[in-house]
Amino acid sequence: MTPTEASRLLDAFARGETTRDEVLRRFQAAPVADLGFASVDLHRELRQGCPEVIFGAGKTPAQVTAIAQKIVQASGRVLVTRITPAHVRPFQRKFPRAKYHEAARLLAVGPTPKPQGLVAVVCAGTSDLPVAEEAAITAEFLGARVRRVFDVGVAGLHRLLARLPEIQEAKVVIVVAGMEAALPSVLGGLVSRPLIGVPTSVGYGSNLGGFTALLGMLNSCATGLTVVNIDNGFGAGFAASRINALAAD
Amino acid sequence: MTPTEASRLLDAFARGETTRDEVLRRFQAAPVADLGFASVDLHRELRQGCPEVIFGAGKTPAQVTAIAQKIVQASGRVLVTRITPAHVRPFQRKFPRAKYHEAARLLAVGPTPKPQGLVAVVCAGTSDLPVAEEAAITAEFLGARVRRVFDVGVAGLHRLLARLPEIQEAKVVIVVAGMEAALPSVLGGLVSRPLIGVPTSVGYGSNLGGFTALLGMLNSCATGLTVVNIDNGFGAGFAASRINALAAD
Amino acid sequence: MTPTEASRLLDAFARGETTRDEVLRRFQAAPVADLGFASVDLHRELRQGCPEVIFGAGKTPAQVTAIAQKIVQASGRVLVTRITPAHVRPFQRKFPRAKYHEAARLLAVGPTPKPQGLVAVVCAGTSDLPVAEEAAITAEFLGARVRRVFDVGVAGLHRLLARLPEIQEAKVVIVVAGMEAALPSVLGGLVSRPLIGVPTSVGYGSNLGGFTALLGMLNSCATGLTVVNIDNGFGAGFAASRINALAAD
Amino acid sequence: MTPTEASRLLDAFARGETTRDEVLRRFQAAPVADLGFASVDLHRELRQGCPEVIFGAGKTPAQVTAIAQKIVQASGRVLVTRITPAHVRPFQRKFPRAKYHEAARLLAVGPTPKPQGLVAVVCAGTSDLPVAEEAAITAEFLGARVRRVFDVGVAGLHRLLARLPEIQEAKVVIVVAGMEAALPSVLGGLVSRPLIGVPTSVGYGSNLGGFTALLGMLNSCATGLTVVNIDNGFGAGFAASRINALAAD
Amino acid sequence: MTPTEASRLLDAFARGETTRDEVLRRFQAAPVADLGFASVDLHRELRQGCPEVIFGAGKTPAQVTAIAQKIVQASGRVLVTRITPAHVRPFQRKFPRAKYHEAARLLAVGPTPKPQGLVAVVCAGTSDLPVAEEAAITAEFLGARVRRVFDVGVAGLHRLLARLPEIQEAKVVIVVAGMEAALPSVLGGLVSRPLIGVPTSVGYGSNLGGFTALLGMLNSCATGLTVVNIDNGFGAGFAASRINALAAD
Amino acid sequence: MTPTEASRLLDAFARGETTRDEVLRRFQAAPVADLGFASVDLHRELRQGCPEVIFGAGKTPAQVTAIAQKIVQASGRVLVTRITPAHVRPFQRKFPRAKYHEAARLLAVGPTPKPQGLVAVVCAGTSDLPVAEEAAITAEFLGARVRRVFDVGVAGLHRLLARLPEIQEAKVVIVVAGMEAALPSVLGGLVSRPLIGVPTSVGYGSNLGGFTALLGMLNSCATGLTVVNIDNGFGAGFAASRINALAAD
Amino acid sequence: MTPTEASRLLDAFARGETTRDEVLRRFQAAPVADLGFASVDLHRELRQGCPEVIFGAGKTPAQVTAIAQKIVQASGRVLVTRITPAHVRPFQRKFPRAKYHEAARLLAVGPTPKPQGLVAVVCAGTSDLPVAEEAAITAEFLGARVRRVFDVGVAGLHRLLARLPEIQEAKVVIVVAGMEAALPSVLGGLVSRPLIGVPTSVGYGSNLGGFTALLGMLNSCATGLTVVNIDNGFGAGFAASRINALAAD
Amino acid sequence: MTPTEASRLLDAFARGETTRDEVLRRFQAAPVADLGFASVDLHRELRQGCPEVIFGAGKTPAQVTAIAQKIVQASGRVLVTRITPAHVRPFQRKFPRAKYHEAARLLAVGPTPKPQGLVAVVCAGTSDLPVAEEAAITAEFLGARVRRVFDVGVAGLHRLLARLPEIQEAKVVIVVAGMEAALPSVLGGLVSRPLIGVPTSVGYGSNLGGFTALLGMLNSCATGLTVVNIDNGFGAGFAASRINALAAD
Repeated sequence: MTPTEASRLLDAFARGETTRDEVLRRFQAAPVADLGFASVDLHRELRQGCPEVIFGAGKTPAQVTAIAQKIVQASGRVLVTRITPAHVRPFQRKFPRAKYHEAARLLAVGPTPKPQGLVAVVCAGTSDLPVAEEAAITAEFLGARVRRVFDVGVAGLHRLLARLPEIQEAKVVIVVAGMEAALPSVLGGLVSRPLIGVPTSVGYGSNLGGFTALLGMLNSCATGLTVVNIDNGFGAGFAASRINALAAD
Repeated sequence: MTPTEASRLLDAFARGETTRDEVLRRFQAAPVADLGFASVDLHRELRQGCPEVIFGAGKTPAQVTAIAQKIVQASGRVLVTRITPAHVRPFQRKFPRAKYHEAARLLAVGPTPKPQGLVAVVCAGTSDLPVAEEAAITAEFLGARVRRVFDVGVAGLHRLLARLPEIQEAKVVIVVAGMEAALPSVLGGLVSRPLIGVPTSVGYGSNLGGFTALLGMLNSCATGLTVVNIDNGFGAGFAASRINALAAD
Repeated sequence: MTPTEASRLLDAFARGETTRDEVLRRFQAAPVADLGFASVDLHRELRQGCPEVIFGAGKTPAQVTAIAQKIVQASGRVLVTRITPAHVRPFQRKFPRAKYHEAARLLAVGPTPKPQGLVAVVCAGTSDLPVAEEAAITAEFLGARVRRVFDVGVAGLHRLLARLPEIQEAKVVIVVAGMEAALPSVLGGLVSRPLIGVPTSVGYGSNLGGFTALLGMLNSCATGLTVVNIDNGFGAGFAASRINALAAD
Repeated sequence: MTPTEASRLLDAFARGETTRDEVLRRFQAAPVADLGFASVDLHRELRQGCPEVIFGAGKTPAQVTAIAQKIVQASGRVLVTRITPAHVRPFQRKFPRAKYHEAARLLAVGPTPKPQGLVAVVCAGTSDLPVAEEAAITAEFLGARVRRVFDVGVAGLHRLLARLPEIQEAKVVIVVAGMEAALPSVLGGLVSRPLIGVPTSVGYGSNLGGFTALLGMLNSCATGLTVVNIDNGFGAGFAASRINALAAD
Repeated sequence: MTPTEASRLLDAFARGETTRDEVLRRFQAAPVADLGFASVDLHRELRQGCPEVIFGAGKTPAQVTAIAQKIVQASGRVLVTRITPAHVRPFQRKFPRAKYHEAARLLAVGPTPKPQGLVAVVCAGTSDLPVAEEAAITAEFLGARVRRVFDVGVAGLHRLLARLPEIQEAKVVIVVAGMEAALPSVLGGLVSRPLIGVPTSVGYGSNLGGFTALLGMLNSCATGLTVVNIDNGFGAGFAASRINALAAD
Repeated sequence: MTPTEASRLLDAFARGETTRDEVLRRFQAAPVADLGFASVDLHRELRQGCPEVIFGAGKTPAQVTAIAQKIVQASGRVLVTRITPAHVRPFQRKFPRAKYHEAARLLAVGPTPKPQGLVAVVCAGTSDLPVAEEAAITAEFLGARVRRVFDVGVAGLHRLLARLPEIQEAKVVIVVAGMEAALPSVLGGLVSRPLIGVPTSVGYGSNLGGFTALLGMLNSCATGLTVVNIDNGFGAGFAASRINALAAD
Repeated sequence: MTPTEASRLLDAFARGETTRDEVLRRFQAAPVADLGFASVDLHRELRQGCPEVIFGAGKTPAQVTAIAQKIVQASGRVLVTRITPAHVRPFQRKFPRAKYHEAARLLAVGPTPKPQGLVAVVCAGTSDLPVAEEAAITAEFLGARVRRVFDVGVAGLHRLLARLPEIQEAKVVIVVAGMEAALPSVLGGLVSRPLIGVPTSVGYGSNLGGFTALLGMLNSCATGLTVVNIDNGFGAGFAASRINALAAD
Repeated sequence: MTPTEASRLLDAFARGETTRDEVLRRFQAAPVADLGFASVDLHRELRQGCPEVIFGAGKTPAQVTAIAQKIVQASGRVLVTRITPAHVRPFQRKFPRAKYHEAARLLAVGPTPKPQGLVAVVCAGTSDLPVAEEAAITAEFLGARVRRVFDVGVAGLHRLLARLPEIQEAKVVIVVAGMEAALPSVLGGLVSRPLIGVPTSVGYGSNLGGFTALLGMLNSCATGLTVVNIDNGFGAGFAASRINALAAD
């Protein structure tokens, strides 16, 4: 049972639209798989609205695989984010058809929904690629059609302008940039769709592990731009797919 | 000419779809009103996609009024943000029908478009009201139907749950919170639409002028949440109206 | 002689309730075991009120074992915190019955007092487990009955509500959370006992090594909440056992 | 209805111990006084467990007085924190017997409960007095007996030692200190009860508005010490009265 | 005697090209005007290479005027930076032909050198004008021809491109920008001359008093860009005039 | 009784060199003047080793005057630091011979000891004068001979070199500097006595209220240099007079 | 096609000085070598104005070598910055005449232009050497004559003075310093040419990874000084060579 | 020639007390040993006033040994600070009688001067030992008699009081402490000699790598206390030996 379902259930009860017995039955039937080291239901909730996603960082390969099995049994598909190379082989032994996205540090199992809408993922430099790919594959896993426009930093403005028509067709644009992160400000003046900025930790010296890019995006004069945490490609891909889904409703 | 139009024009030229003369004519005809102290076109671009908005902070009453006149002549309506009380009377002398939103520090002139979709503006405490109102009125000015759900901080959870069905109907939810900003995390687990978090500078001691709330939102475990700058109600209202418009397309 | 005893002794002398000779005799008899690299008495005082605890970090396995021997000789039991795996085997060679709490990075020797009262240790995610266990085992070592309620982050609110009655029975509640640390704020509105927040360094990007969680807890709108240092499970367990002991007096 | 009552009610329903109609009746009967600018119930929840407290900062004198009237009608007493001098006269016109604590920036109406237990409020210097008084009066308002031990900073150690027996009798000790905040560390080695540290913004230069004192307390080698936000005397008084109440149960 | 002259004098002596007596005579003849509250020579050195500039902040009107008189007697001209309105009238009473640059907070006396070379001063928004003017007038006072290109922030890219040819003619470009300061990054890709970035404190929320703009410029991917302190228009104008002078040598 | 006397007394008792009765008699006779709002003894201890100094900031004129009277009665002299202009007249009404040091924000009453040794107080610019004077007058009040060498910032190196012999005669050198605080590094290579650095809050932009100068001094490559808090002229004067006194012993 | 060329081309078209066909032909002929993992043209733009430079950090040896081949084919020479030792052998296998600058972490291929002008690279200590060499070799690669003046920190002032005449001959001076970075302030008072400061991360404790040096340089009282990012020797060398080229025009 | 000698020489020349030829002869005779990778004279100046000290960090074993040889040839003794274990064996091969202080990370060669005066080195915990030993051995190398008083943190106050008489005999006291660094504040109230605080990076969580201890010391209410950089035992030992030498003059 997702939190939304839980709260709707309580709400229905409050309006008298369901019975006490039904509420209790539903709560007890909630498919929580207790694995000792983790409550699978919890991890689905951590990624609420998207029960098929496991946050791999800080979990052993055995833990990730065991949780994934429970989820695949229930829903037929799963996405694992922030994995390390050590997770891959044990995972693929259990799920031989799992797809390993090395750059994006992702593992995916199961069929992908029919793509709809269009999310553009734009990044400034090659160093931003892992974060951009994490965003792109997450959005694809959640049902969005994705267009990648990479390596278009503002230092070479004519390259960005050349790709602009492709970007302008998207329903929502993810902009990934490190260093001083000027790309979202420029792009914000050129497209009329929602933009989601992802600051990356790319840089050195006073880049402050990505804080310089984060602050730059938060203070951008571009309108329509909102921001996620540093290097949080998953969060941007998730939010973008929600917005994209709105357009397709 | 908006930047988008400008770049599309150049693009069309590159594809041979328009002539040199047409490009030059369009550029020269761009409705830039030079007032000496300000180029009105600039201010429209500062708020790109929404040429009717003036950022009032740091401008004298006379400047604001003069810029507003140019915009109203061109498009029949205008919104002024971050005004001080000193701006109001000179403005209303020129625009007797202007509406002054005191809490939100906004002045608005002209007809409002027919509201469409639904944006929920949720805030945690009464001190967050000015920022929440800035977000709400901006979204209304840009064509969104807005529902206000105020004073529902997580310290009194049952009050938030009581208003949840109203929130869940919205296409996009703006969440305004100061102090530790726990509300977006809780709400993120209860709705399945895009959320935009607005940290406020409300608090004292180690709230760091709103940075504590900003960091809390950026590190939220809630998915589907993106964030704008501290106290930036206008930015949230603008981004939300864009997302809301997608749903209505 | 603990500091409290020392100051009480001086105080008694000042009131004429003890003699000069008695004061001198007591001071000279203070059981300080000088090991060269460390004064065991000091370490007891570092953990004042709880002479049986050794802070393992930065001490060699041989040092930890030698200090522990002195303490066990004097009081029959000892707790070692923040150990590394390299400490375990040398320690267990000397204390074959020592219990090794791997997740909590603790070693314990000797009988546990009869548990009294009730301390609830609540944590938001599995990554917070090591800190939560350090708090729980510390409180148990110091005589508290402990109830663990793990994996109940606010993103899945219904799970927290389901465990609420168990939490509400405790005399004092320890809340362990990383990332944006919204759990203490929500819990603070649902229980009427003292709460102790432990921010953890779990997270990435702008989590600032746990500072985001720390600031969130310090600025929480929840009343009755006090806070310890980042990842300081020991400190929370110690303070909670003191509060719990008050209730049992 | 307090949040605790609300959650207990839902819980009782889940166990079948109450009926749907009773739940609905209770919710509708919740004494929320809607004043337009504020929902009085919200403010009670903001201070959960203590519905009689109003946070005065950011509210007009008229608002504070109106909210206070609703609370006094319901419960016979109220405490207002963080008031400015401008709040006092309008408040006293409505509540002629209201007591104004100038140093602590508090207004109190109604009878005080019979004092129980003992909370010691210790501060390092005269500049810390407003925060110490806020803590002391809050704890008294909530039913604790309070002993003030002021001006005992560590630079004059013999003065602290002279007052130690008075401090050691308390069930819980609040320690208020600014600058480098060494007092809690020294006191932590001399008492065996829970300590709550309140860093103050007193100081200049690199005191960072109280952050230096806050960091000092969080990193204190003293055990049994927990901390609240900078200058948060109310929070310390509230938490201390809860701990004190435990001892008296 | 300027520091450069002093060091050259010592150097000449070390090479035997001048005598001890000459060195002593020159040192004693150094035109230091001791005014009690200030050593005028010091202030010239504070602005080394440009003895005619007084830093007005923190000096009384009488002090500024007295120092200016000494300098004008010696060299016929003077520039005063960072003045407040209170400095103006006393100054103009003594120097009736003094020119007051209100926006730039400058006072200037005496003839301007024949302009040479070309310095472009570009700024992003109207709020950056005072800093941009301080840079422009300083460069003019030091002998540079200056071209102002204001209000060309990247949110309206076509306006910047329209002014590009004017900017590209300059020997050195000063770029003034607040908020996220994306303009230098874009401009750095479009001109091939040295650029000097001046971050301004314009903005709000997480702009950190100009630090966000400063960090953005320091981490810019644009080459050829160097940076001065926040709001330091004088420093940029001074450095630019030195570079401009190189081109004219 | 000063803390040092108190601890020596206890120590003497522990060695059997004094009697219980003597200890008690001495403690009771400790000249603590309780004024209600302040314990004068406390303030002497706050400035331990120097009982005649009152920290004026945050005290009303009446409080400062009352405390000063008690001290002057006991020891014939007093120094008050960090006063505001409002303190002066009430103070001088009571102490007509009090000397008011306006720049240094000090009030002094009573005879000055015969000066001994030599403390040099060196500062970089005129804006550093108030802090430099606070240091100089404090050292004089505490018995040191003081030589002022002002306005010798490193931008005009020959001026510093010209005054070097005067500085090299001192027993200890106080160096006061704001902005980037390069002076202590240069001076540290030119004198062989202890140096005490006082960073000042002079500057703007990224000077961070004096933190830039503080960090510069702490990281100086000069040996023999130690540092006090930002703008803490009193602390530097106090420490320097202690070091100077050592040389004179 | 460089960005400057691109923008000039568009500009020429806008003025009617070139035809549509010519614009299209030029754009299509832009020598972008798509290698899959990188667009070589992008990397040239990242270093705009200097297409021969590859930023090696974060690229595999194979990637660096492949990109270098494309650039050498086009322009006969290339510079690679921020390489690791692992890059060297694969690179030299392909380019046997490549020169490896180990200290500066650079690889260079092809003929060096005839040196012109003079850039002085001054550094404070031996630990600053890698950054100083990166600056020096970059400037040489871009056509400047370079003079190295190393190990002249202000702690040993006479050594700096001894080398001063050599420094004063340069057209532009790069000053590299870590720790408190006092050298630029001293040098700024002794030379009359543009200075570029490069803060280094050399130091420990409160050096904050170079931020202390960076802040020191930004707040320097020296005029004519501008600053680049921490450890950014390449940026300083690039900017200096541009300024040096101006002098040679 | 030390910098002091150099400046005195220049000064003598300026007063006509020495001849040009003598100055030149003296400068040319300055014993600068150029080793290619380092100018030995520089390193002596880096540690001005103490030419026998080499900062080992960042130098290879071969470099350290070579520099040491030059210094030992000239002055018969040398101290090397901040060495790594890899430096030891090559060093001892060349200097078989070198003494290796492992905890303090120091190597020393040559006779120690006859100890004079008394420096107390006090530290709070065993983890502070390496820094305390670096301070102690440095002071001994520079001629001071040193008394170590370790493990006397304020959590066990009676232990500190027991050692107080030993501390009070010193001419100058070095206080080494990490975490919240309360020890200097307590000690400052108990001794009347100069104190030098050394904050250490010991701790975790919000200790900020020693910044918490540094800020605590800078804001200490104790008078007579000055501070050096985090973990800078050498700097404290150097400054203390200078002060101690004053007392012995």
